[in-house]
Formats: sequence, structure tokens, C-alpha cells
Amino acid sequence: MTVLNVPSARSKRAVDLAGMSPPQRNWKGIAIALLVILVVCSLITMSVILLTPVDTQPGSDTKLTVEDLFNTDFYVHDPEAHWINGKTIRPQTTRYSISPDMKYVLFAYNVKQVYIFENNIYYQSDVRSNSLRLTSSGKEGVIYNGIADWLYEEEILHTHVAHWWSPDGERLAFLVLNDSLVPNMALPTFTGSTYPKGKQYPYPKAGKPNPMVKLFVVNLYGPTHTLELTPPDELKLREHYVVMVKWISKTKTAVRWLNRAQNVSILTVCDSTTGACIKRHEETSEVWLSKQNQEPFFSRDGSRFFLTVPVKQGGRGDFHHVAMFTSQVQIRQDRNEVRHLTSGNWEVTQILAYDENSQSIYFLSTEGSSTRRQLFSVSTVGLFPRRCLTCELNKAHCTFFSAIFSPTNQHVLLHCKGMKTNYYLLAHDNYYILENNSVLKTALRYKRIQLLEYRSIQTDHFGNVLLHSADKHISAASADCVNDTAPGGQQVNDRYSLDWDSVLVSSDNVIVARLDGRGSGFQGQKVLQEVHRRLGSVELQDQLAAVDYLLKWPYIDRTRIGVFGRGYGGYISLLLIKSTENLFKCAGAMSPVTDWNLYASAFSERYLGFPLQDDNRYQVSAGYGSFDCITLCALFLLILLVFPAANVHFQHTAELIKNLVKVGANYTLQIYPDEGHFLSKSSDRHMASTLSSYFKSCLQEEVLSISEEEEEEEE
Amino acid sequence: MTVLNVPSARSKRAVDLAGMSPPQRNWKGIAIALLVILVVCSLITMSVILLTPVDTQPGSDTKLTVEDLFNTDFYVHDPEAHWINGKTIRPQTTRYSISPDMKYVLFAYNVKQVYIFENNIYYQSDVRSNSLRLTSSGKEGVIYNGIADWLYEEEILHTHVAHWWSPDGERLAFLVLNDSLVPNMALPTFTGSTYPKGKQYPYPKAGKPNPMVKLFVVNLYGPTHTLELTPPDELKLREHYVVMVKWISKTKTAVRWLNRAQNVSILTVCDSTTGACIKRHEETSEVWLSKQNQEPFFSRDGSRFFLTVPVKQGGRGDFHHVAMFTSQVQIRQDRNEVRHLTSGNWEVTQILAYDENSQSIYFLSTEGSSTRRQLFSVSTVGLFPRRCLTCELNKAHCTFFSAIFSPTNQHVLLHCKGMKTNYYLLAHDNYYILENNSVLKTALRYKRIQLLEYRSIQTDHFGNVLLHSADKHISAASADCVNDTAPGGQQVNDRYSLDWDSVLVSSDNVIVARLDGRGSGFQGQKVLQEVHRRLGSVELQDQLAAVDYLLKWPYIDRTRIGVFGRGYGGYISLLLIKSTENLFKCAGAMSPVTDWNLYASAFSERYLGFPLQDDNRYQVSAGYGSFDCITLCALFLLILLVFPAANVHFQHTAELIKNLVKVGANYTLQIYPDEGHFLSKSSDRHMASTLSSYFKSCLQEEVLSISEEEEEEEE
Repeated sequence: MTVLNVPSARSKRAVDLAGMSPPQRNWKGIAIALLVILVVCSLITMSVILLTPVDTQPGSDTKLTVEDLFNTDFYVHDPEAHWINGKTIRPQTTRYSISPDMKYVLFAYNVKQVYIFENNIYYQSDVRSNSLRLTSSGKEGVIYNGIADWLYEEEILHTHVAHWWSPDGERLAFLVLNDSLVPNMALPTFTGSTYPKGKQYPYPKAGKPNPMVKLFVVNLYGPTHTLELTPPDELKLREHYVVMVKWISKTKTAVRWLNRAQNVSILTVCDSTTGACIKRHEETSEVWLSKQNQEPFFSRDGSRFFLTVPVKQGGRGDFHHVAMFTSQVQIRQDRNEVRHLTSGNWEVTQILAYDENSQSIYFLSTEGSSTRRQLFSVSTVGLFPRRCLTCELNKAHCTFFSAIFSPTNQHVLLHCKGMKTNYYLLAHDNYYILENNSVLKTALRYKRIQLLEYRSIQTDHFGNVLLHSADKHISAASADCVNDTAPGGQQVNDRYSLDWDSVLVSSDNVIVARLDGRGSGFQGQKVLQEVHRRLGSVELQDQLAAVDYLLKWPYIDRTRIGVFGRGYGGYISLLLIKSTENLFKCAGAMSPVTDWNLYASAFSERYLGFPLQDDNRYQVSAGYGSFDCITLCALFLLILLVFPAANVHFQHTAELIKNLVKVGANYTLQIYPDEGHFLSKSSDRHMASTLSSYFKSCLQEEVLSISEEEEEEEE
Repeated sequence: MTVLNVPSARSKRAVDLAGMSPPQRNWKGIAIALLVILVVCSLITMSVILLTPVDTQPGSDTKLTVEDLFNTDFYVHDPEAHWINGKTIRPQTTRYSISPDMKYVLFAYNVKQVYIFENNIYYQSDVRSNSLRLTSSGKEGVIYNGIADWLYEEEILHTHVAHWWSPDGERLAFLVLNDSLVPNMALPTFTGSTYPKGKQYPYPKAGKPNPMVKLFVVNLYGPTHTLELTPPDELKLREHYVVMVKWISKTKTAVRWLNRAQNVSILTVCDSTTGACIKRHEETSEVWLSKQNQEPFFSRDGSRFFLTVPVKQGGRGDFHHVAMFTSQVQIRQDRNEVRHLTSGNWEVTQILAYDENSQSIYFLSTEGSSTRRQLFSVSTVGLFPRRCLTCELNKAHCTFFSAIFSPTNQHVLLHCKGMKTNYYLLAHDNYYILENNSVLKTALRYKRIQLLEYRSIQTDHFGNVLLHSADKHISAASADCVNDTAPGGQQVNDRYSLDWDSVLVSSDNVIVARLDGRGSGFQGQKVLQEVHRRLGSVELQDQLAAVDYLLKWPYIDRTRIGVFGRGYGGYISLLLIKSTENLFKCAGAMSPVTDWNLYASAFSERYLGFPLQDDNRYQVSAGYGSFDCITLCALFLLILLVFPAANVHFQHTAELIKNLVKVGANYTLQIYPDEGHFLSKSSDRHMASTLSSYFKSCLQEEVLSISEEEEEEEE
């Protein structure tokens, strides 16, 4: 095994942040401090203002600014290490693709031409050979071969790739999505041309026709021929999704099929030479099934596989744990002997590897705390002894890891995503630092960064709160919430992030609180599934309970609380201001969902069921017309609306605005036109600046005049 | 002659507003007063803050509020009197149409079915007969028969009606507009349905293919047949517009044809029995020709007609005056003897009637002041003696009139649009009050309403400024600018209006200034045409000169000046903040034009010419990318963007926002989705409230803290 390109110079400079001595605060100069509870993302958060000590120290240059957020010194430096057959490389660009048999490398500049073009698949066996068209049915916006349509990319597969190479590169499995019955959504592009361009794309909303899916395998060895892999009998005649495809040998694939209601899931093993699929595992539920993308790990002979499945843990409900399924061929092929390798009031979040030689499963879990992700191994034999491989790094404040195993399972690339943000190579129980992010650490050392505090709320409802303040030195970092816009997400964990709310905490003495209430992930199925068919109801109660809890603290100024959320979090933020009166002084919503009828079928139906005529569950979300002026006028509501077009359409915002205007609500907004999923850097910076300024001025204005008076009194 | 339905009770209660005694102000309590120069509309305006006395009187309930604006007591009550064959009626609804021969009355409920449907014309001779389809080529969004496409409705005819009945109702002239080459503009509708609806309509932008126009007459007497009226030879093979059609006898129509560059105009008289059109008058100009919609008044035998034409008035350039054209048939049919019936440094704004019996022309003019519209008669014989018919009403502060003559020219309905807002019937030199708007006058009596002051600016450039303040009692009222979004408009005149800026003047001690600089109308051709090919340049200089002029006043606080404009005025507002640094503290732009390339062909080309490759004149307007942060960040720029979709598209705003975001400008906006030309009442109210609050808080915030300090000092 060779490690290439590891920057050894930096590796030597591991800096122990925990050992740094913070500047001492002058506690005497206390005037009035602000605590802004920042909010939110998916599982919202809310802003609260506390009366905490103001930073009266001369070193005000240590405050974090919006500019800092976009200074590369404050970026996490990713060494971009990847495994290639037991070797790790660190390329200059990530825009390449390597076939599993190492025969082919595709670079970005010609991917479009030889690969999937106009929704058809082309195959080029050699760089010099002609490309061969494997499918001909492809039609833009109608038939998708090997590439995901909007729904599959965003809600089902979570990638645009809908084709999978066999390990030897001789077969290719691919989805064919037929969107001919799916209604089109229009997305206008306003800028850059004399006439705006309207883009149409199929987008099934709740209750509307879904894409029809078929799974094929094409044999590229010798004369090409294509074969359909047949869905299990139970789902053949019902609407269904294909949610996972994984090659488990040269000719066999594991495929997971899910009914449209998302509560019946069948894992099959399909023979790509005959097209026959044999059921190996079935899950059913009263509510929706989660973790449907997870890949099973099969033994070489295919008789055994590993999955995480929900396992009852006493009164606290089901938690996902590693299960070993062994086929009982003598009885029936879909009958397995099931052994649970792990158990407890914590979750296995991801199985990373199955090393058949050492008879070990490697996985990440929340054992110890739901805020953590540690790497463990568990033996698949005996009493299933378990061992933590990263817990030693706790001393260095590394408690939140992601990991990538080498193909031989001998080595692991570890990324500590906590405050340390180190990258490690773990080999034979030794840790090598690939990147210690010393630039970032140096940059942060001179900044007043938030103090994090976790609290579990003791109310009728469940809730974990993460508080960010700048009172003391940093002991951990805040949760990142950027891509986390649905139930099952997590706000309260040990991941490091800096965002516009960090500026409020550092520079404006604001306290930001984030809540994981019911509907949040990584704390068992019970917490998660409480929102089923009650979206917008139980999370709301939890948010309000959390505010109540925080308001009991004597140093919270109850006249200065704000709330912010985006996407689903925007939806909850709007519900919060709608259901309270004068509780929140400021409110922000970014691309809020305002009506689940307008949202994607797979999402809305998962949580609310298929919409019926006059469906109450859906109508709750459509009820923004009932916002009344008393609440909003008192609030001085400001809603910042951003529409990265792909996910939450402007439609949601338009309906909301119509109602706000009708009731004469005081609102304002920002638009970032023609942006996609990810905002451009200038838009991102503009948004960070706008949001921090808005909350700062909304929450601070009364403080300023009081301070003035005090100054005068002192004179 | 019978007058029906005149509300006699109200007629008796004429109230003399001028005689009302204003409440005395307490001048001692002066702190700091604000003068907001409000702006704008078409010929922008700018906001200035003056140090004028604050209203410290107890009677603060006399301040005008946004709510007042939408209280019907503050509406002008229109008796809706119309002439029908020498009688006036006052119907409950205006949604009816009467054929000229009094045979047919169409009511709104069936207009669509029997008239123009799917862009074809249907004719129903009797209520009980079947309807007859007169055209078949109509195709939505492509061929328009008798109805205007977007360009003709908005920029050429200024009505959607593109058909004209002959006096006896036996012939119908109509336009056929072929938009098949005109590129389409997409207008998405976001609200009200699960999937947004995209509406496409032909919209020719500067330099793009225009609709092709043909004029037909259909004979409805006996077997129908249709005949094209042929354009004059000079324009037959060139792109042209038909800008005016008027029946001047049972078989003849006067038609005005205008080339695409809008500097060659030919008035023809067409024979509807042969289709032949004979040229009667031609106008050419180096710049664009104005007043192309005006209808000529013909004598019964067709040998003589009256028009206003530009006439040189010494060094002050051309002014529009009444000209009498008498055909010299013995020489050539298009040779006329021309006699000018009026002259002077003022304009005839509209010819209203030609009474061949009394040999008189009736017209409105600006004689005396460009801010006025008085009704005059002029004899068409002798020395053309002129007489003012409404000047007697000056005593009652009536200086701005519109008038509608009865078909026999014996009686006139007069509407005084000044502060009196009376409606009169003028018959045989006697005035009868139809409506004295006593409710409105009573409502205004208890309000502190703005004082108007006109000033002519003495700079290198021309400019009339109208100042609104609340220092003294009202002597006149402010200009209404709602439909006035192009060069040729007027801000400074005697029309009465109440709008959101009136609230600032009345309640917030703000002074609003409106400027008519170069490019404005009613002050001669020279002033108007100075903007030709210099749009966005000379008006800008005049605006800046006006601000300079106002800043010389000692009581203006130069740190608190704001600017606002809409449409073309929004464009000028943006240029103003772009070309100055820290001059304006607040800026508002409503549906601003940001790039003339994106605007309608007939408008952009009229003022800027046909766009060439890399056209400098056009590029000026496209240069919002050069906004720099120094200017904008210092300004705390706020741009309120509203897009009543039909006129200035969201595209303009989107391009602007992209640039604002790129430079990190501090802006915010409001959107009123899915509104048309006219905002809904709730949107209108929301907008008035937003605009007045924005300017109030932007301009007043520092005042508040100073007042506080002063109060403390007094203590």
C-alpha cells in the first residue's frame, strides 16, 4: 500500500486547540447582553435574547465577521484523498471517474459526449473505439436512461447517477425512468438573455403521477444484450420506487424496491444473466421506512448479509442496529436466520465495511451520545465483541467522524469533523495525520468563537437543545445545517461549522439555540416517527416547549427572541410565528415550504400519506391565509426569502406573500435570481451579511438607546 | 336636452376650501423638520429633507394616514356622466358599449361571446340573430383581428380596441396584427394552482421583429365583404405602425401611418368602398414625432381639417398649436393651405371639438401656465379670436380641466381635476354643478394637507419643481403620477391627488419635490425632445441640478435626502444613486427599467433609435453592473421592487439584483406576485404603507435620538 501526496510538512504541526488559553473577560463592564436563538434549518431552531455579559474587553478585533466566513483561512482544508485499489491518491481535480476494473478513467471534458447524452447511454470500450449506443428510448424530460429525473435525484437516490457498473466492468445496471405522465414544472430563467428562458421539467407533486421505473442490465461482453430485472411479485402491479442497487458479485445485484406509500420494502438479489430477482428481506411498517438507501454488505458466497434494522430497546422504542442475515436455503430462500450484532439506546448510523477475513463489521454509531459519530468494529462471531477505533482521539476533541475504507478493508481514511477538523489515515492501529488544518486553527485562535452547551429539555416532549454563546472559550462547535432540510436530520451534534449565526454569537453577544425535537434523527425511530401524519404539529410543540424552557432563565430578555429556518425549517418558523403572539420579535424564513401539496410526491407522501380530497393533514400547511394582522404587525415580521430554484419553488413564497399582503403584514425579502441548489459565492456572502445584519439590528436596536442613556448618566 | 340623475342635493353644497381657516401652528416647538423629496414616476423626483418646523400642535389627529388614502371619503366621486346623442346619462355600470347609430348596446356579460373571440371578429346584427364570423385568421398569440396585441395596446393605440365603427354602424374598420415573427415573452403565474401556469405572449423588444399591421374595412350592409385600406406608397414596403383610425364620414376614414423609426408620419383619407388612401398631411422630424394618436377634426365635406402641429415660437422652439388645413384640390390633393389658429409659448394639449355651424374649435391648453389645462374656443374665421370658457372658474381654484363635448357641440361636461374636483355641466355659458365632492372636501378639511409651491429652477438646464410641504394651508394639490411612465409626462401641474407621499408630507414633516426637467411634456417640443438618443443623461443632469438648487436652502438637511421613482422613473432613480456618492440616504425604485434592450421596441426605439451592434446609447442602461459597493454600502440602499407584470418585466429587476448581490449592496424588496397593470386594493394599500414607512424610518431615525437628547436637556 502506498500513500501518495500526503502533505508531510503540515502533518507535523498538530495544534492542540484545547490547550490554548482564552483571553480573560472583564466581567465588570456588563451592560446588557443579547442572546439570539438562531435557528434553524430543517429541525428548526429559534432565537432568544439573553441578558448575558457584553464583551467589554479591548480586543474587539477578535470578533468574527461576515468577511471572515469567506476568508479561505477559515475554510476546512480537505486533502481530497481517495482510495484506488488499496492506494490513496490526492488528485488536483475531482472531476474524473474510474471504472472498477481500473481499465477506464473518464475525465470531465468528455464525460458528456461518451456517456449519457440526451438521456441515452453510450458505451465506449476503448478510448480509440467508436461509442456504442446502448439505449435509444431516451428523450429529454420524458425518458431517462441511466440518469435520474428530478424526483429520483432529489428524493430517492440522492444522486443523478442511476447506473451501476459490475465489479469487472462487463455489465451495467441502469434505471429507465418514464416521466411521460408526470406533470411538468416550469422554471423561468430571468437573467442573461434578452428573452427569459423557461425550463420545463417533470416534477411530481403530492398525489400526482410518479415516474414509472424499470431496472435493466446490459451485458457488454461480446454482443450486447439488455435484460430487465423483474420487481418482486408484491410490487409488480403497484407503484414503486427502486431505492438501492448494488453489485454483490460479477453477475448478481442486490436491489431494494419500495412501494409508493414507502412502508413496504423488499430487498432482492437479482441474477443479471436471467433477470430473476429473489426476495431476501422484507420490511413493513405502519409509518414510513427510513434508511432505504443503505447498502447491504454480502459475504462472498452471498449466503449472508449485514444491514442495520430497527430493533426494539425497551420503552424507548426501536433503534437501528447491525443485523446479520443468514440464508436458510433448506427452508426457503427468503427465510433468514437473523442475529443482532449490536444493541442499546443508540444508533448504528452507517455500516462501512464487512471484512470477511477478520470476520468484522465496521460501522459508525452514536454510542455514548447522539451528538457523536465514532468508528467501531464488531465481530460477526462469538459474543460479537465490539471495539471503538476512534475513541482514543476523544482526548483531541475528535468525536464526530466520517470514514472511508480501502477496498481491502486494511486502511481507513478518517475525517474528524469536530472542532479539530483533522484528516487521518488509520492503518494497523496507527494514526497518521493527513491534514491538521493548522491555518484554520490559527485563524480561529484569535477569534472569539462560540461556546456550545448541550441541554436535554425536561418537558412532556422530547428535545435536545444546543446553545451557542461566546461567554467562555470554545469547547466544541456548532451544528451545520446546510443540507439538512427534512425530518431525520440533526441540529445538535459535534460537527464543526461556521456560518452567519456564528457572527451573531461572536460579535453581537447573541446566544443561538438549536433544537432537535420529535422528527429529528439519530435518536431512535420513536423520536423520528412521531411526526408521521402530524408534520407541523409535534415539532411545533417541541419548539415552543424549548422556548418556554429557555424563557425560565432569568437572563433571557423575552422581548427579544427571533426565529429562523430554511426549507422545512422555514415552514416550522412560519408556523411558530403564526401560532404565537408577540413571542418572536424577528422571524426569517429561507425558501420556506408553505404548502405540502406543492412539494415533491415522495417527500410529502412519506410523512403525510397520499393526499385525499380535502385532506386535513395537507390543509394545515395550506393555511397561511389565516395569518392575522394582530400577530404580524406586532412582530415586525421580516421574511428573507431565497429560492435556490431546484428544491422549494418560488410558488411557495408567492402564495405566502399573497397572504401577507392581504393581511397587511410587514415583511421584506431578498431574492437570489437564477441560482440553483447552491448559491454562488457572492450570493452566499450577500445572504450571510443580510441575515446577520437583520437579526443584529432587529434584536439590538433598543439596547443602543439604553446604552446611550447610560453613557450620559455616567457623564 | 335632458340631464338625468344629477344628484341635486349635493349640488347645493359647494364648499369653498380656500376660505377655510387652517389651525395655527405652534412655531416655538421647532425641533428638526424633515423634507423628503418624493419622487417620481416617470419624470422622477427626488426626496430631500429640510429642517422645517415640526408640527408640535396638539391636533395631531389631523395628520393624514395611509388608512385615510383607502377610506372612500377621500376618493374623488365621479358622477360618471356620458353623452348619448345630446343626452347625458349616469349609469350604474360603465361596462356597456353603444353603437354609434344607437341600434346596439353591448353589455359586459356577453361581450366576449359575440364580439371578438379567439382573435376573430363576430357580428350579430340583432340580439336574436345568429352571430356572423367576419374573420377566420385569428389565432391566439399570433394573429389579432380587431384587437390589439401587447405592443399596440401599450405603446401604439393605448387601448386594446383595434376596430372602429362607421357613424351609421354599417362598416367596421379593424386592424389585423400578425405577430408570427415576434418573439414570445413568458409570464409565469405562480399562485392559485398546483402547477404554475406560464403565459406566453408576443412582445417585441428593441430591435426585434415587430407585428405586421394591415387595416381592413368590412361592409356589413348586405353581403359582407372585406377590403384592405392600402398604406401610402412611402411606407408600403417599410415597417410601419397604424397609430390612428377615425371615421370622418359614412364611407371615409382618416388614418395615420408611422414608420418604425417614428419620425415619418402620414395622414391619409381612405375610401372604404375602394380601399384607396389619399395622403392629406405628412410630418417628418429628426427626432421622434409626438402626439401621433391625436385625431384630426374634419369638415363635413372633407376639404378642411384641424390638427395640432408644432409651430416655432422664437428661441423657445416649437409648441403645439391648432392648425387649419384646407385642401387645394386644384393644385394637388395632398397640398393644403395651412393657417395657424393659435400661437405662443404654450401648448394646445387637445382639440376637443369642431363646431362647423359656429365656426369654432374647442381645445384645452396650457395658456397662462404649463401647470394648467383650461378650455378655450377659437374661431376658424377672421382673426381667429380666442376665448377662455373655464377661466372664470379660476376663482374657485379650478385650473385643471378635462372636458367632454356633446355630439352636437352644444354642451360640455367639465371635470375640474384640481383641488376642487368638481364636475360641471356647461350649457349656453351657464355652469351647473353635477358633483361637488363635498364628502371629500369635508374629509380633507380636518386634515393637515400639503402646501404646494412651484419653482422654476435657474440653472444651465431647464426645470420646474413642485414642492409639497405641510407648513401652511393648501393652496393647490400635488401631481398624480400613476400612469405617467415615459418622456412627455408631467409631474408639476395643478391636478389633485393623494398618495402615499402625501402621508409623509402631512404626518412626517417631509417635503416632497417633483421635477419636470428635460424630457417632460406640455412645455414645448424643445424641452421634450432634448432626451432624444440621450435617455438617462440630460434628465439626470436636471435632477442633480434640482437637488443642488434645493440644497442651497439653509433648512435642508443634506444628510437626509431620498429618491423614488417607478418604471422609467425607477430607471432615473437608479441612475441618480449610481452617479452620486452619499447624496441620497434612501432610494426606492418600483418596477424599474434597468436595460432598454429588454423593453418594448416602440418605446426604446422612439427615444434611443434602432439598437445597433454594441450600441452605446443602449449600453448606458445596461451598465448596472458597475454599481460599486462604496456608493451603495454607504447609502444603505433599499430598493422596493414591484412588478405589475405587464409593463416592466421582472427580468429588469432580476438583472439589477444580480448586480446588487455581486457588489454586496444592502437592498431589500417587496414583491406583489401575479398582479397585472393595476395592483389589487390590498396590494396597493400594502405598498403605500411600505413606502411611507420605509421613507419615514430611513429619514427620521437620527431625529429621534436627537429629540430624546433635547428632551433630556430640557429636563
